[in-house]
Amino acid sequence: MVRAKSWVLKKHFEGFPKNSDFELKEAELRELKEAEVLFESVFLSVDPYMRPYSERLMKEGDTMIGSQVARVVESKNPTFQVGTYVVANAGWTTHFISDGKDLQQLPPWPEKIPRSLALGTIGMPGLTAYFGLFEICKIRAGDTVLVSAAAGAVGSVVGQIAKIGGCKVVGCAGSDKKVAYLKLIGFDEAFNYKTIGSLEEALRKASPDGYDCYFDNVGGEFSSIVLKQMKRFGRIAVCGAISEYNDTVPQKGPYVHMPMILNQLYMEGFLVSRWKDRYGEALKILLGWVVEGKIKCEEHVTEGFERMPGAFMGMLKGENLGKAIIKV
Amino acid sequence: MVRAKSWVLKKHFEGFPKNSDFELKEAELRELKEAEVLFESVFLSVDPYMRPYSERLMKEGDTMIGSQVARVVESKNPTFQVGTYVVANAGWTTHFISDGKDLQQLPPWPEKIPRSLALGTIGMPGLTAYFGLFEICKIRAGDTVLVSAAAGAVGSVVGQIAKIGGCKVVGCAGSDKKVAYLKLIGFDEAFNYKTIGSLEEALRKASPDGYDCYFDNVGGEFSSIVLKQMKRFGRIAVCGAISEYNDTVPQKGPYVHMPMILNQLYMEGFLVSRWKDRYGEALKILLGWVVEGKIKCEEHVTEGFERMPGAFMGMLKGENLGKAIIKV
Repeated sequence: MVRAKSWVLKKHFEGFPKNSDFELKEAELRELKEAEVLFESVFLSVDPYMRPYSERLMKEGDTMIGSQVARVVESKNPTFQVGTYVVANAGWTTHFISDGKDLQQLPPWPEKIPRSLALGTIGMPGLTAYFGLFEICKIRAGDTVLVSAAAGAVGSVVGQIAKIGGCKVVGCAGSDKKVAYLKLIGFDEAFNYKTIGSLEEALRKASPDGYDCYFDNVGGEFSSIVLKQMKRFGRIAVCGAISEYNDTVPQKGPYVHMPMILNQLYMEGFLVSRWKDRYGEALKILLGWVVEGKIKCEEHVTEGFERMPGAFMGMLKGENLGKAIIKV
Repeated sequence: MVRAKSWVLKKHFEGFPKNSDFELKEAELRELKEAEVLFESVFLSVDPYMRPYSERLMKEGDTMIGSQVARVVESKNPTFQVGTYVVANAGWTTHFISDGKDLQQLPPWPEKIPRSLALGTIGMPGLTAYFGLFEICKIRAGDTVLVSAAAGAVGSVVGQIAKIGGCKVVGCAGSDKKVAYLKLIGFDEAFNYKTIGSLEEALRKASPDGYDCYFDNVGGEFSSIVLKQMKRFGRIAVCGAISEYNDTVPQKGPYVHMPMILNQLYMEGFLVSRWKDRYGEALKILLGWVVEGKIKCEEHVTEGFERMPGAFMGMLKGENLGKAIIKV
């Protein structure tokens, strides 16, 4: 008999999540039926989207949503051999039974590449960076690209892909350590938005001519200020709005219409699932770039399933450099 | 000797324009040189863009910017025969001398069609509607299209083109008379935003499933509310923001990022001049629709050049139904 531990949303978040909003539950899993597979979690992911979607997709008592890299420990399904790995949207749980549907088997995985990257650069965050840049920002060589939350799971890949694409890349992040990391992985300019005196000036200094593209992970006041430094026909990929997720009362800022008209700006919100039918193609490219060393990957690993809520809250506070991962 | 009257920006507008911001000047025009043409104004245009652009393109003492339909009264340029008509960006003036550059000669003009339409449906506002709908909103038959300031020079054409394109069209305007007019010219739904209790409810009632396209002429709070009723992959053409033009302190509203992401919305600001090289093609189509009666045109004509500032301020207040025109 296998006992599965799961983190449950005990109470809907009000403002910033608290420890008491989560509850750890344990349950005995039943025997496998024909065609079923038993998985155990190896790596779990905490991502910003879990905060806004907790209200939309979950009710109190539900297991927290999320994906993980899991290993087959028992199988009555010939497609899934014991010892093989999948990415599963199984939520925050250590073990689960699946009929094999809606699982993504990991492709042949080079030994030197950690499998946890299937939750990061060679997974959803990497795909988000890839499609956001090519399909929304429509980057061209020579463009100046700004990335917010640039040291995060998505942002760090955005910057490196934009460099591969021949762009000048400016990133901002919330600590000097992160800024140093951004320079290390090839960002042309980077600054700590918490310590600069004026965001307007820091943006202008990093690119006096303005920005062709803005990959927006933060929303809020930051993005209002960026809007005024976009070049004519600038493109904004609205990927995330982490500065707004924990608001109990929606924040307000200046209306976007005047700068949008005067500089003929284009802005589009997106969810990566839009390009689901192209994941295979893109993952192959991303894996290739990682293997060749063109994209460097940093992970912020928290050990222990019990510490998952803390890892989630830490990620929302920006404590992670690179992808936040839980190692079971 | 010809004396030209001109309206000059005496003082930059602060908030809503006042009579004292304008000054009427008179000057004697010199004799024509070789290749020059003398024009007299027949119809002048007042348009919303003049308000935000007064700060950007003019200094105090400059003649107010704007276009007009003018007639050749004397010519030393064989291209311009006496008695022919042009559209000229000559500003608020009754007479002017030109070397013939940057003038748009009117194409063969059907007798029953007023030449003032070259400032409206068969001119810049019509082109704005045409390109905004086809190039930004990318309308498709079956789409539900919302238009704000729908009884204005641009909005009334937007609605009628969208109907030609097989869309369901919802318009809103600021008086019951305008709403009645919108229904008369084929809008499926129309409401008076000043008298409805709740904009949310009026929008929901007019299209319970939401909106595929929003042709935004007003910006501000109105557009913030619309944003939440856009369908997935909705497209917003940001054409104007008349509700914001007279602000001395920029208004604030809820950030756009969350609704943009959750419904994967697309928003683009535009100036019609982007499609300058396609004006000829589009004007031919617009003229055809007007001749066939597929687009009906309403004009709000103010007689007398002296009354031009009043006509401009009235237009900013929404006193006009259709295109605001000054007849000299």
